[in-house]
Amino acid sequence: EHIPFIHERYSVDKMQQRAEDFYSLMNKRRTVRSFSDEDVPFDVIKEIIRTAGTAPSGAHKQPWTFVVVHNKETKKRVREIVEKEEEINYTRRMGSAWVDALKPLKTTFIKPYLETAPYIVLVFKQVFGLDSEGSRQRFYYQEISCSVACGLLITAIHYAGLVTVTHTPLNAGGALRDLLGRPANEKLLMMLPIGYPTIDATVPDLERKPLNHIMVAEM
Amino acid sequence: EHIPFIHERYSVDKMQQRAEDFYSLMNKRRTVRSFSDEDVPFDVIKEIIRTAGTAPSGAHKQPWTFVVVHNKETKKRVREIVEKEEEINYTRRMGSAWVDALKPLKTTFIKPYLETAPYIVLVFKQVFGLDSEGSRQRFYYQEISCSVACGLLITAIHYAGLVTVTHTPLNAGGALRDLLGRPANEKLLMMLPIGYPTIDATVPDLERKPLNHIMVAEM
Ligand SMILES: Cc1cc2nc3c(=O)[nH]c(=O)nc-3n(C[C@H](O)[C@H](O)[C@H](O)COP(=O)(O)O)c2cc1C
Ligand SMILES: Cc1cc2nc3c(=O)[nH]c(=O)nc-3n(C[C@H](O)[C@H](O)[C@H](O)COP(=O)(O)O)c2cc1C
Repeated sequence: EHIPFIHERYSVDKMQQRAEDFYSLMNKRRTVRSFSDEDVPFDVIKEIIRTAGTAPSGAHKQPWTFVVVHNKETKKRVREIVEKEEEINYTRRMGSAWVDALKPLKTTFIKPYLETAPYIVLVFKQVFGLDSEGSRQRFYYQEISCSVACGLLITAIHYAGLVTVTHTPLNAGGALRDLLGRPANEKLLMMLPIGYPTIDATVPDLERKPLNHIMVAEM
Repeated sequence: EHIPFIHERYSVDKMQQRAEDFYSLMNKRRTVRSFSDEDVPFDVIKEIIRTAGTAPSGAHKQPWTFVVVHNKETKKRVREIVEKEEEINYTRRMGSAWVDALKPLKTTFIKPYLETAPYIVLVFKQVFGLDSEGSRQRFYYQEISCSVACGLLITAIHYAGLVTVTHTPLNAGGALRDLLGRPANEKLLMMLPIGYPTIDATVPDLERKPLNHIMVAEM
């Protein structure tokens, strides 16, 4: 029932080099909000979803469903649902402190990229499972596990040279679940358009916290 | 305030190849629970934490603190706190369905790796921030953002050729926060030992769900 673990070990120099290379690659990732309508091969999207599916999960429940939308009509409906809720979010639900916090990002409730990006991936977390007799099976840490998987998804998108925006539309989950025919045990966690940026895409001039602001060491 | 986005674009063939390579690398990741006591250079750990810090976060709050414990005495105290709570978790808090779900993993409340692994990284999420005048600043989606960052952390550990176990010790957060002197706005999300596996490390013979069980496509 247990099998030997096959470990690929690098020399200390190589390990250091790989750790630096991976940091420098990931440090170039940015959230992009203007997408070209240029298509991307579905095979690439499949590898990216497969990669997300290698994530660890509490008790190995793998409590995720990735709904990949490429169909134009469906993307249009997704956009309508999201914009309707986001307008209420920005004007009434989020409150002024939250809206202020978003000002540097220049985000609004209008999301053209939901139609222009060739793909949108909607990530659903399974809040419980159903066993072969149809009875409910409790799942543990599903939100954390699915978010970790989204970390892998975002990394895989970037590794392939594509861009995304991690989007969490408040209150739109129920209508999107109905639109996509997902079952009652699935709840929308986040949605990520995938594609190429437009040639003139810009990003907010944000800084990342330096290491000594995010790390504390007990040596 | 917005700056041009610099995009590294690959040919379609290269993109496909990179997507496949990254999947095949990540598909070799496993949760390992038996660690060698061989040390790892702190510089490698720093790059790994830096990589986690490139994660996206709701409203760019970067609501994470990574506490890196290398000190033997502190690791011993961490182990004591965790094992005390985990014993209660396994025998009383988790319930029989949960304990059954963990049987294939052969995990118990005894966690020697918390002392043998050269490092333990304790990830704290900041549930609110403090502005320069000391008043509370609301943070949004901190648990999701921190979990996404943990996805990057786990990926960076694997990329460097090291191993970890994603560990979420129920109820031990408060005592660990006190031990490590973290402030009241920080809550433990998870802890990840980092190091080399023992030479004879084994892993549960688990399968991952195939693509058609985790992905639904509307083309
Ligand atoms: C949110 C989360 C919590 C976890 N908690 C524990 C834990 O407390 N103890 C443990 O041994 N493993 C824990 N794991 C690891 C899982 O058991 C492991 O990922 C799963 O069995 C799949 O194995 P793999 O990571 O080798 O693919 C956790 C994983 C996640 C994502
Ligand atoms: C959990 C989470 C939720 C987010 N929600 C949104 C969102 O609804 N809309 C949006 O435009 N960006 C959203 N973002 C993206 C953040 O604004 C972005 O990551 C942050 O500003 C840092 O920029 P960077 O990703 O370019 O480093 C979200 C990110 C995370 C992790």
